[in-house]
Amino acid sequence: MTRYSSAHILIASEAAKQFACEAFRKVGLSQDSANSVANLMIEADLSGAAAHGIFRLSQYVNRIKLGAINPQPDIRVERTAAATAIVDGDNGMGHLAVAQAVKTAVEQAQESGVAWVGVHNSNHAGAAGVYATMIAAEGMIGIYSAVASANHMGAWGGAEPLLGTNPLAIAIPCEGWPAVLDVATSVVSYGTIKNYRLQKRRIPVGWMIDPNSGADLVEPDETAGGLLLPVGGYKGAGLALMLGLLAGTLNGAPFGKKVVDFNQSPERVCDTGQFVVALDVSRFAPLAEFMASASSDLDGLRKSRRLPGIEEIRLPGDERYRRRQGQLREGLALTSELISQLKELARDLDIRPLG
Amino acid sequence: MTRYSSAHILIASEAAKQFACEAFRKVGLSQDSANSVANLMIEADLSGAAAHGIFRLSQYVNRIKLGAINPQPDIRVERTAAATAIVDGDNGMGHLAVAQAVKTAVEQAQESGVAWVGVHNSNHAGAAGVYATMIAAEGMIGIYSAVASANHMGAWGGAEPLLGTNPLAIAIPCEGWPAVLDVATSVVSYGTIKNYRLQKRRIPVGWMIDPNSGADLVEPDETAGGLLLPVGGYKGAGLALMLGLLAGTLNGAPFGKKVVDFNQSPERVCDTGQFVVALDVSRFAPLAEFMASASSDLDGLRKSRRLPGIEEIRLPGDERYRRRQGQLREGLALTSELISQLKELARDLDIRPLG
Repeated sequence: MTRYSSAHILIASEAAKQFACEAFRKVGLSQDSANSVANLMIEADLSGAAAHGIFRLSQYVNRIKLGAINPQPDIRVERTAAATAIVDGDNGMGHLAVAQAVKTAVEQAQESGVAWVGVHNSNHAGAAGVYATMIAAEGMIGIYSAVASANHMGAWGGAEPLLGTNPLAIAIPCEGWPAVLDVATSVVSYGTIKNYRLQKRRIPVGWMIDPNSGADLVEPDETAGGLLLPVGGYKGAGLALMLGLLAGTLNGAPFGKKVVDFNQSPERVCDTGQFVVALDVSRFAPLAEFMASASSDLDGLRKSRRLPGIEEIRLPGDERYRRRQGQLREGLALTSELISQLKELARDLDIRPLG
Repeated sequence: MTRYSSAHILIASEAAKQFACEAFRKVGLSQDSANSVANLMIEADLSGAAAHGIFRLSQYVNRIKLGAINPQPDIRVERTAAATAIVDGDNGMGHLAVAQAVKTAVEQAQESGVAWVGVHNSNHAGAAGVYATMIAAEGMIGIYSAVASANHMGAWGGAEPLLGTNPLAIAIPCEGWPAVLDVATSVVSYGTIKNYRLQKRRIPVGWMIDPNSGADLVEPDETAGGLLLPVGGYKGAGLALMLGLLAGTLNGAPFGKKVVDFNQSPERVCDTGQFVVALDVSRFAPLAEFMASASSDLDGLRKSRRLPGIEEIRLPGDERYRRRQGQLREGLALTSELISQLKELARDLDIRPLG
């Protein structure tokens, strides 16, 4: 598994889950809801999406305390056709709304072969790949996208932050472990820029531009007003835009100018939009047969000749699986800064500290 | 509209359609089939995807003559659930198989809200955006993807051409014209490389690599064995792979090693895989209301402040619409090389030449 720097502390994933669960209980979530959210957050950590895991706990707790997230939502599902539904998250934790959407989509796809479920009145739901993978665990192909909870990109050619780094996740059941793509539509995440700023490292060319000059922004202390660049230029910007229309506008949720920045405005309601698709493999081929074919096709790629200097060809989902196995065994590798932050949270909430 | 060099000749789109139709009739397609394929090909030209339009006619005719494409397919639709179906293209023209998939998906989505239709035993079907846009014209959101008809990329880190530049198209109905994303998962198409080679122009860094050294390939006369780079590095390679599994493997069609190169092997059957999704907007919001919201969200982006040197913010579908309007009025802008090639085809087939 990945080697971590000495600044990482290993924490049993169960302990981290318990801690997150207690924190959510303290700010008013039901035991069931707290369990569900904690589970989904730790799944993000386990699979290597640390920026969407327990790292977000203090922020979520803060938003709940400020009244910007409803701790006891009445999540409603409206089935609008045999294969479509809209989930109203009632401004609860996004994890709960999306988990409900996954459940509904899988049920509808069992009946109809495929289902598309939109979500509105939701919030940041953590790691995209987690939800797609939940669907793959049911023998279905899972797709997830969301309107990102802040705009850090411009339209292609634009100088205003009006586009989010709207993520796309696709999970496909295979033998052994699923193929899982989980990508933001920017070259790097805003979290990566924040890390560079903290460490006073120069930002590589091609990641961020100055909206006034259009030039690459490389000085870490000038990144505050910078725009992230979309992955693959106009193609990534276009994909971010289409996903924004599908996850936001189609569900009556904000996209573009109307998006609330959940970092800048911790007290404001976000009304985040998301969607999930579940596609029942067995309507196309027997599941076991498909999984064998997919694994064989992927092995053909994994075992192909490598470019000089490449030790191993890793396909989407390979590293995720290895990390998950490693961290389940050895514990989550959390940074010492995060552990300190969580100790402070424990004091604030008067719960048992972690680690 | 776009300015064309003096080497372009304007041909009325109806004349081009007639010509393609006659050519297909001569190699055995029925009048209906010939009409349909010609229509879809000219739609590609009209919307600016010239590399997927009448430019392909000689190649298609050649494949039909060699027996690699069935001119009179018995296209069968198996509805495997209320919202899923598999289209067997019977090795006919890909345009016919995918048009059937579009028709079936729209019908199923009218009933069930969404539909996912896979295609196998198909062939190259031209421009991805054409099919997504057909669905948008029905007031639905359209998605299309395909296994590209040749492998010009490697797995991320790989040195063998095992991945296609598998395209993704999404079309969303809006006021005025639809938002249409139509992108290959490579930085540039193989056709662009071929053009640079013809013109003996150096290939820009970041487009293609030498599979032996892994270094950028910039000399036009060394591009024959080169690998196209995926858009956005591992993200684009990952997306190409997932689309390959969805359009190929899931439909029992080749992906990876098994893909037949339709340029290199004009006599071999391709068994191309594709899929389309239709999502009925009206199951989420009244169509007119959604189209107004989407257009307003997009106008917010179009009218936003621009980066220095940018005259206009163009969103996915804007240029496509303008080209289509312009070329419907003024004619298709075809290169003189293409006109010569089509004259030769006319002689071969003993039909009236174009232009």
